[in-house]
Amino acid sequence: MLESTMMEYQLTIPSILERAIRLFPDQEIVSVIPVGVDPATKAPVPGVHRTTYAKTHPRVMQLCNALVAAGVQPGDRVGTMALNTYRHFELYFAAPSVGAVCHMVNIRLPLEQIAYILNHADDKILFIENIFAGMIPLIRQHAPNVATIVVLGFVPGGLPAGTVDYEEFIGLHPTTYRYPEIDERQASGMCYTSGTTGDPKGVLYSHRAIVLHSLTSLSADLLGVSSRDVVMPIVPMFHVNAWGYPYTCTMTGAKQVYMSVFTDAVTIMRIAAEEGVTVCAGVPTIMAGLLDELDRATAAGTPHVAPTLRTLLVGGSATPRSVLAGLHSRHGLHVKIGWGMTETTPLGTANHVMLDQQFDDVERKYDAMTCSGRMVPLTELRIEDDEGRELPWGTGESGRLMVRGAWVTGSYYDNAEATAATQRNGWFDTGDIATIDALGVMMIQDRAKDLIKSGGEWISSVDLENQLMGHPAIREAAVIAIAHPKWDERPLGVLVLRDPAVSVSKAELDRFLLERAVAKWQLPDAYEFVDEIPKTTVGKFLKRALRERFKDYTLPVTA
Amino acid sequence: MLESTMMEYQLTIPSILERAIRLFPDQEIVSVIPVGVDPATKAPVPGVHRTTYAKTHPRVMQLCNALVAAGVQPGDRVGTMALNTYRHFELYFAAPSVGAVCHMVNIRLPLEQIAYILNHADDKILFIENIFAGMIPLIRQHAPNVATIVVLGFVPGGLPAGTVDYEEFIGLHPTTYRYPEIDERQASGMCYTSGTTGDPKGVLYSHRAIVLHSLTSLSADLLGVSSRDVVMPIVPMFHVNAWGYPYTCTMTGAKQVYMSVFTDAVTIMRIAAEEGVTVCAGVPTIMAGLLDELDRATAAGTPHVAPTLRTLLVGGSATPRSVLAGLHSRHGLHVKIGWGMTETTPLGTANHVMLDQQFDDVERKYDAMTCSGRMVPLTELRIEDDEGRELPWGTGESGRLMVRGAWVTGSYYDNAEATAATQRNGWFDTGDIATIDALGVMMIQDRAKDLIKSGGEWISSVDLENQLMGHPAIREAAVIAIAHPKWDERPLGVLVLRDPAVSVSKAELDRFLLERAVAKWQLPDAYEFVDEIPKTTVGKFLKRALRERFKDYTLPVTA
Repeated sequence: MLESTMMEYQLTIPSILERAIRLFPDQEIVSVIPVGVDPATKAPVPGVHRTTYAKTHPRVMQLCNALVAAGVQPGDRVGTMALNTYRHFELYFAAPSVGAVCHMVNIRLPLEQIAYILNHADDKILFIENIFAGMIPLIRQHAPNVATIVVLGFVPGGLPAGTVDYEEFIGLHPTTYRYPEIDERQASGMCYTSGTTGDPKGVLYSHRAIVLHSLTSLSADLLGVSSRDVVMPIVPMFHVNAWGYPYTCTMTGAKQVYMSVFTDAVTIMRIAAEEGVTVCAGVPTIMAGLLDELDRATAAGTPHVAPTLRTLLVGGSATPRSVLAGLHSRHGLHVKIGWGMTETTPLGTANHVMLDQQFDDVERKYDAMTCSGRMVPLTELRIEDDEGRELPWGTGESGRLMVRGAWVTGSYYDNAEATAATQRNGWFDTGDIATIDALGVMMIQDRAKDLIKSGGEWISSVDLENQLMGHPAIREAAVIAIAHPKWDERPLGVLVLRDPAVSVSKAELDRFLLERAVAKWQLPDAYEFVDEIPKTTVGKFLKRALRERFKDYTLPVTA
Repeated sequence: MLESTMMEYQLTIPSILERAIRLFPDQEIVSVIPVGVDPATKAPVPGVHRTTYAKTHPRVMQLCNALVAAGVQPGDRVGTMALNTYRHFELYFAAPSVGAVCHMVNIRLPLEQIAYILNHADDKILFIENIFAGMIPLIRQHAPNVATIVVLGFVPGGLPAGTVDYEEFIGLHPTTYRYPEIDERQASGMCYTSGTTGDPKGVLYSHRAIVLHSLTSLSADLLGVSSRDVVMPIVPMFHVNAWGYPYTCTMTGAKQVYMSVFTDAVTIMRIAAEEGVTVCAGVPTIMAGLLDELDRATAAGTPHVAPTLRTLLVGGSATPRSVLAGLHSRHGLHVKIGWGMTETTPLGTANHVMLDQQFDDVERKYDAMTCSGRMVPLTELRIEDDEGRELPWGTGESGRLMVRGAWVTGSYYDNAEATAATQRNGWFDTGDIATIDALGVMMIQDRAKDLIKSGGEWISSVDLENQLMGHPAIREAAVIAIAHPKWDERPLGVLVLRDPAVSVSKAELDRFLLERAVAKWQLPDAYEFVDEIPKTTVGKFLKRALRERFKDYTLPVTA
């Protein structure tokens, strides 16, 4: 092999922060954090913490020294159970910078799963947000290998016994630190998928994957954020690197705004206005809540004004067309959809439709905006039939979505069984069913296990849900399969009304769906109304729970 | 070392084209090429060749097969002496896709240097543009190892003996090809620097460097081009990968417009209008010519109208402030400056000042726009004193500009002497003298060898030249050192008048420079007027030739 004359230059996370502190020292990192509790409502009261890349740097260096002093070795997992704040940001950089792994634990999981994850990853040190301090005794009990617990933020009742305050943990250490040699293929971060079945499965990110993912995210066609942007990632830092934003924004020198527990639409809009936020990222439920609040405030004659806000980056599950259309048509906001998974770091596809792009008709524009988009550079998608044969694009046929690329996992950490179940011929099986059109635009049809098989034909639950959530009476809709003697399975719609006093008939919903190109045989056989649809910790519908609840459901005979 | 669970995924050039043909099949690659000669003026007549990513692909595959059939082995250098056209584009992708090296030879070099380069690189096959076919006998004579010569384009007098027409060379081969396994550190391309001293020195780019360079270039803060852009790289494909544009534009699916010999301002503006060009890239002399033509046409009442054109990307040498200010203030065009070298693939820095960015006063905006800008991600800059000690940023002090990064060369091909002279402690010595301000904004002061040492103080020739070229009477200005008995060296200004009939006095130029913050002791001692300033093949002032011409020059005693 004829080698190039290029320098050997490793792609590493420390270089991301080092560049930002030199080129954008005064760019801010803003954290909206609880500073007390409202005595009347018991709700947390937000306060604004303000720092800069330059001021963050000595603290990250202190944290590096503190980690080393605490015995953290290269390759060790450093657990975090923390919110979106500057302290979590510091951990995002410090842990990989000492050659260790920033292991973000999903704080919304049930305790047994958290204990499983801490034990499986073998975390010896854990950084835990003050508001979760009550869990510490249980963590000690169920994950006894966690030797050091560091608490982020003030604990009113006093620090739990045997724990250390974060500021004390880092405070006495030097503000300079010499990075070790880092190989770009070394593990830098870790997340467990909060799958709906089986034990959580761990993915180890590499320095290389994070750097490549950040660079790619910066492309004009993808996130397109620059050093003049102000980015508010509502997506939690305890889940898939907060979609990589802490790294991506730092790489380009953007201002960053973190919201800890304050993810309600009113606070989001107030802070967006105060801080000049240009880009906000979150899951569809956040955006649906935002739309409701924007509509409400406008109707009340007191509209929210955040003139800099222009783009909402949405992913994590399907975004109802009605939500993106409402945000765009009534509030001038551009919803840009992406698709990804814990196993894909996460960016896999991005929708290329731009705010200023012209369409013959706005309905077509919203159709186009609703798609998951195209595979990003360094990522490849294909769809396969059940025998693992590649399906051609552009036929309308759906298949199992397979992905491979520079930041796609090739295995699960210490889990040969789950690895074998999902890796095939160098491709990762996403477990999603998708179509890919002739120009590579991917559209998730369903999770493989959520598809409804009726008389040998597939019905997409996601498609029905998205349409139903466009009906003015309906806030949330989940569609699940119900066993049927003749057709094998038939769809049941589980609905949450916008106003419990205003119901809607099946006849009306049939009419509504038929008008939106749903075939007659795809119409749900029945609807059930509930107060709330159970959700996973990251905001997706927990269909397993619905299937359990309705497992003995009998469909009306009229079907 | 704890490895991540990420897939092993090589960063390779074939993946760039493969993505484009699947996602942007109908995006065009337009080439404006000579289709004849005007009988009256003998000037070439332009014709438009139009293809797409989808249509290019089978031709690239044919070319891959043809290269293999011609005996090209992995690692072999495939020489090109060619213009900016779709055929050269095909070579850019095909040569690396078979594991070989696309070796772009600078066609403007003197024959001895071309022969040196062909022999040093040991090219066995050469693709040569039809208009250079006359050189073939001399190439055969001086570079006898070139066994196969393929001619790009029709030769009116018939193909030279023993050569092959490009279309015949590829025509009979299959349109499918299976890429070999490619290691990302494998050489993919090669350029020799057309330095002003010594033999040309070769740099071998890698697949990895090209992919990383392309990804980084796409950032919103850097080129910021998207799939909706139409990019016209005037910078030649025979020089530093045409700044990487063929790869960068393909990676994002942009439309590309190549101009072969038609780099005059009138044709540029006509094609920009016809093809909807949004971004045009070239050296400062191209942009100065463009400004002259835009001014002329406006004054004549027949202004050029290319409403989509918004950004001019300029690099290669210092851009006179007057040129960028004129393009911006009189024609609404945003000049975005970058800095780089053959040794840096080339992107090293980019100016972050944006068209829509507000400044207190427009003069300050132009000052800011004139800088070379900030180091891009994965590239690091430092300045050193003569003893190799790093100088702090923001002091105003200038030093030797050193660079390292993911696409910076770590050596010259088969040239230990030149390598040793330029590589120090893992950094590449650019040979430039530069300042870096407190926020990392780099400004080239001079080539180290062009600095003028007067009484122990340095005078920047580049700075004087840029100011002088802002004077309305002056088209071009080069400043060189003249030996001086008292001060060691003093500056001489060599000027080209805009209108030979309208001269300008030294007193007037002194006043002009003093008004622009040039110190009295830095003023040139004298001026000489010439018809033309000799230039290198890539449009930089050839100061070596000026120094030779004026080596016995005696400065007036008044100094």
